[in-house]
Amino acid sequence: MHAYRSHTCAQLNKDHVGQNVRLSGWVHRVRDHGGVLFIDLRDHYGITQVLADSDSPAFADIEKLRAEWVICIDGVVKARDASLVNPKLATGEIEVYAKGMTVLGAVEGDLPMPVFGDVDYPEETRLTYRFLDLRREKLHNNMMLRSNVVRHLRNAMWDQGFNEFQTPIITASSPEGARDFLVPSRLHPGKFYALPQAPQQFKQLIMVAGFDRYFQIAPCFRDEDPRADRSPTDFYQLDVEMSFVEQEDIFAAVQPVIQGLFEKFRPDCKTATDWPRIAYRDALLWYGSDKPDLRNPIKMQVVSDHFRGSGFAVFAKLLENEGTQIRAIPAPTGGSRKFCDRMNAFAQKEGLPGMGYIFWREAEDGSGMEAAGPLAKNIGPERTEAIRQQLGLGKGDAAFFLGGKPEQFESFAGRARNEIGRELGLAETDTFRFAWIVDFPMYEKTDEGKIDFSHNPFSMPQGGMEALNGDPLQVYAYQYDLACNGYELISGGIRNHKPEIMFKAFELAGYPASEVEKRFGGMVKAFKYGAPPHGGCAMGIDRAVMLLADEMNIREVIMFPMNQRAEDLLMGAPSEPMNEQLRELRLRVVPKDA
Amino acid sequence: MHAYRSHTCAQLNKDHVGQNVRLSGWVHRVRDHGGVLFIDLRDHYGITQVLADSDSPAFADIEKLRAEWVICIDGVVKARDASLVNPKLATGEIEVYAKGMTVLGAVEGDLPMPVFGDVDYPEETRLTYRFLDLRREKLHNNMMLRSNVVRHLRNAMWDQGFNEFQTPIITASSPEGARDFLVPSRLHPGKFYALPQAPQQFKQLIMVAGFDRYFQIAPCFRDEDPRADRSPTDFYQLDVEMSFVEQEDIFAAVQPVIQGLFEKFRPDCKTATDWPRIAYRDALLWYGSDKPDLRNPIKMQVVSDHFRGSGFAVFAKLLENEGTQIRAIPAPTGGSRKFCDRMNAFAQKEGLPGMGYIFWREAEDGSGMEAAGPLAKNIGPERTEAIRQQLGLGKGDAAFFLGGKPEQFESFAGRARNEIGRELGLAETDTFRFAWIVDFPMYEKTDEGKIDFSHNPFSMPQGGMEALNGDPLQVYAYQYDLACNGYELISGGIRNHKPEIMFKAFELAGYPASEVEKRFGGMVKAFKYGAPPHGGCAMGIDRAVMLLADEMNIREVIMFPMNQRAEDLLMGAPSEPMNEQLRELRLRVVPKDA
Repeated sequence: MHAYRSHTCAQLNKDHVGQNVRLSGWVHRVRDHGGVLFIDLRDHYGITQVLADSDSPAFADIEKLRAEWVICIDGVVKARDASLVNPKLATGEIEVYAKGMTVLGAVEGDLPMPVFGDVDYPEETRLTYRFLDLRREKLHNNMMLRSNVVRHLRNAMWDQGFNEFQTPIITASSPEGARDFLVPSRLHPGKFYALPQAPQQFKQLIMVAGFDRYFQIAPCFRDEDPRADRSPTDFYQLDVEMSFVEQEDIFAAVQPVIQGLFEKFRPDCKTATDWPRIAYRDALLWYGSDKPDLRNPIKMQVVSDHFRGSGFAVFAKLLENEGTQIRAIPAPTGGSRKFCDRMNAFAQKEGLPGMGYIFWREAEDGSGMEAAGPLAKNIGPERTEAIRQQLGLGKGDAAFFLGGKPEQFESFAGRARNEIGRELGLAETDTFRFAWIVDFPMYEKTDEGKIDFSHNPFSMPQGGMEALNGDPLQVYAYQYDLACNGYELISGGIRNHKPEIMFKAFELAGYPASEVEKRFGGMVKAFKYGAPPHGGCAMGIDRAVMLLADEMNIREVIMFPMNQRAEDLLMGAPSEPMNEQLRELRLRVVPKDA
Repeated sequence: MHAYRSHTCAQLNKDHVGQNVRLSGWVHRVRDHGGVLFIDLRDHYGITQVLADSDSPAFADIEKLRAEWVICIDGVVKARDASLVNPKLATGEIEVYAKGMTVLGAVEGDLPMPVFGDVDYPEETRLTYRFLDLRREKLHNNMMLRSNVVRHLRNAMWDQGFNEFQTPIITASSPEGARDFLVPSRLHPGKFYALPQAPQQFKQLIMVAGFDRYFQIAPCFRDEDPRADRSPTDFYQLDVEMSFVEQEDIFAAVQPVIQGLFEKFRPDCKTATDWPRIAYRDALLWYGSDKPDLRNPIKMQVVSDHFRGSGFAVFAKLLENEGTQIRAIPAPTGGSRKFCDRMNAFAQKEGLPGMGYIFWREAEDGSGMEAAGPLAKNIGPERTEAIRQQLGLGKGDAAFFLGGKPEQFESFAGRARNEIGRELGLAETDTFRFAWIVDFPMYEKTDEGKIDFSHNPFSMPQGGMEALNGDPLQVYAYQYDLACNGYELISGGIRNHKPEIMFKAFELAGYPASEVEKRFGGMVKAFKYGAPPHGGCAMGIDRAVMLLADEMNIREVIMFPMNQRAEDLLMGAPSEPMNEQLRELRLRVVPKDA
């Protein structure tokens, strides 16, 4: 017989009754039922009930066991009484009568946190004893989910003819715009490598090198300030690039992969198959967000005309300023003063003076529907009715109004839309809804009035060189995000592979050619020697797993996460270097007050 | 029609004749056959011949094309004349008559190196223009091989019930014994992370966390001094760990994976299915190496007894010293003075005074076989004959002899064995032979006479605690390498998962418990809370691909390798940091002469 096990803790059933078996695993739980000891023995695969009574030669040893000891049991499989069968357990029909027991790994002292049971523990404890936390069912399942998700993604990409290539991790700075982690060079003291923020330049070089369809489950490194839903050091993305493609080719390659992923791992949910394309500007207008949650049916509209010159002086005056708008957030079923006041209070909590509203109710005089709310009174019944008709609302519904320069209220409008949807229970549940957000503006005006890239400087401007010769603020980029349930799941673009267009694009944003050559020299050089049109995207693996596992904290889907101060509490990182190490790198740490 | 292609450059055949098609790719080669232009158009998938004559509206544009321009061709598929069919080309039955051509990516100026043809170029040029080098057939094929190898390994591991988990890359120092790459922490100035030399501690923690079978194609980082067959920064390994296993379980899990790999990717070669276990001491004795090339049939033997008290004073005297031995390297078919002298010269070139030999030839007097060489004369016919019989040699064969303390000549003996095998053409060709090297000694005596770990300090000593209470130099570890054709392909061990045995093992090597706690605190802590017996191994991916691709230089199997000075010539790494970056990290570079 094998030294440690003849079966796993998930394998035994009625067919094994009478067999001598050997099982190894962790003591999940010990119960003493009046001289009969029951152990739930747990391994990676499952749990098997082991019992021993005073007739068993192992009884005395088993009596001493405590939770989380690793043991090996020799025993015989017995059928449980029909009344004791546990249908929830794969091994619920049997139990193993222990004849011998060996301790393989003891526990010294008390456990800092239990594995059995769902008691919540402070995150510091959980991270310091991550190996215990990972034994818990939820984290164990999350890790298996993550592993299976990555496996599924690889298979799906391979099936579509993509090849996985590894790109360098110790390399030069990458142009993602966040802060690099640096790695001092010992062979070249005073010089530093950088860890890649993403394999962006390398995947583009792979295309220039003549490979057609690349993907990688790629580690990415950004030295960013901590945030709950972000790993402060490394994270993984499904990185994709294709040659000789247009935007729709990328969409066609990606959608089956992502849709298949959600369908497979959340069969209990609806995964929408219709993935609309929504222009960036429309997304902000309709949903107040470039990553809208489309489970929420609320779609905002511009209603400026109804307020222009109206009796509601605040909006009427406001509309006299250039670039202002009034937008309505329809709130079907929100037609009560109580609800409207609550939303108004929400707006005030968010720092706004308030949020105007109209709601439609049964007229008090029984004549049918009437519009209520201070706004309705101010603008009069005709305008109010026109608004109602435009928004397609009726009795029992409400609408909220925000005015000003869109860029100043759009983000609040998005939050208000979420809040209204949530409060009214309008949003679909158990559903994943996707949308490609397209036509991102290439440039934006900074607060100082300068033109700068609004997103990715490496995307191809729509209209190419010709477009760049016009008004930069009117140039759209071949750039896109995939929004899923309010999150940005994927981001990508068709790349600018023509050096002359690239130099021009950077020039408009105030970067001289010399700066472009200096910062992205490798890629620019490559583009001068026969570059194919290409494009791609990247999906956050952690984010996808969080969505699939219904987790809000990224540390629930990473095997060994840092805490929010970017510390590894288990391994003790970061730590003081040895003097010898600093000497070899020719580095000195500057004292804090220097 | 698609903007760039209706087909790839490998798809068209006789069935497409008459169709209008669109192809995109690189101009592999242009030939002008008296007013008819032929272009070999190349993409990732293959090559298609495109032609244009002066009737073609695209003729004038095509005439201007040069190698490596990226173009899009509109044309019609024509059958080639039977005499012009190229059976070596998937598309060899057809050609595409160009009716239109668009330049997608031009080449500015001259190419620094050609893609077509096999002209050798200096490595600096090849690395600076890696994107061009990668377009060449050999490197392209190597990269595809590597991608497919990794894919195959993943599938093979999944099929065996292993799960892939990602371990941290920005983390604490790992106990592999080489030099760490450090990453300064911005949030904790003065403190540093390390990049993992291997995920050793993490994979063991994964076992302690209750996962049963882990693997990862893991990036590893060692700041080592450059060597031709080593990447100076990051490299990849197939990292494996299993719980509740013994050494033979690891072998049983690994062999089908590796054997399947070699069988699949080198069907032209024989992959041996018999993987012998060879004790470390025997490997050194028989082959002079702990990574023997078993394609070479030469097996050395101890022949001390035949020389003890013999007339060959050098060996006879030498044997009077303790710990000395005489070993013979049999050289079947090497029985000529010319060959023996050449090997003797080889020994002298390697710094030895020479290498004694005997060879057996047809006796000059026609009486049959005689032994020749100075050694034979010195020890006389009886001893010579006894040696011949022990070694199983005959007429036409030779034997070489080395004496002294084995550890002083073993490594040369290994090289001599290789040289003899090569010179005599004894080694099998087109064959992969594997052996598990087992029973590594746990400890060795250092030059200063101290006891130190001879290999991996984390392996379980055979015999456990009891063995550690005896002579440390007699303790073997559950540790193993897989040798393949003279290379170490895999290294691994059954881990020491018991804290008390681990502390004892380190104590013997002079490390107090406090030092163990300090250096490997995370893992030691984990072992105190219920650790399962576990073990595993790691295979170098680069090494495996080198063997499969028959490459001697690691840079031929890495997409974007560093040069031997650990520089990325394409991306320009390492480079000077910005002052701002150093300030944020609170670091200062010490001037060279400080």
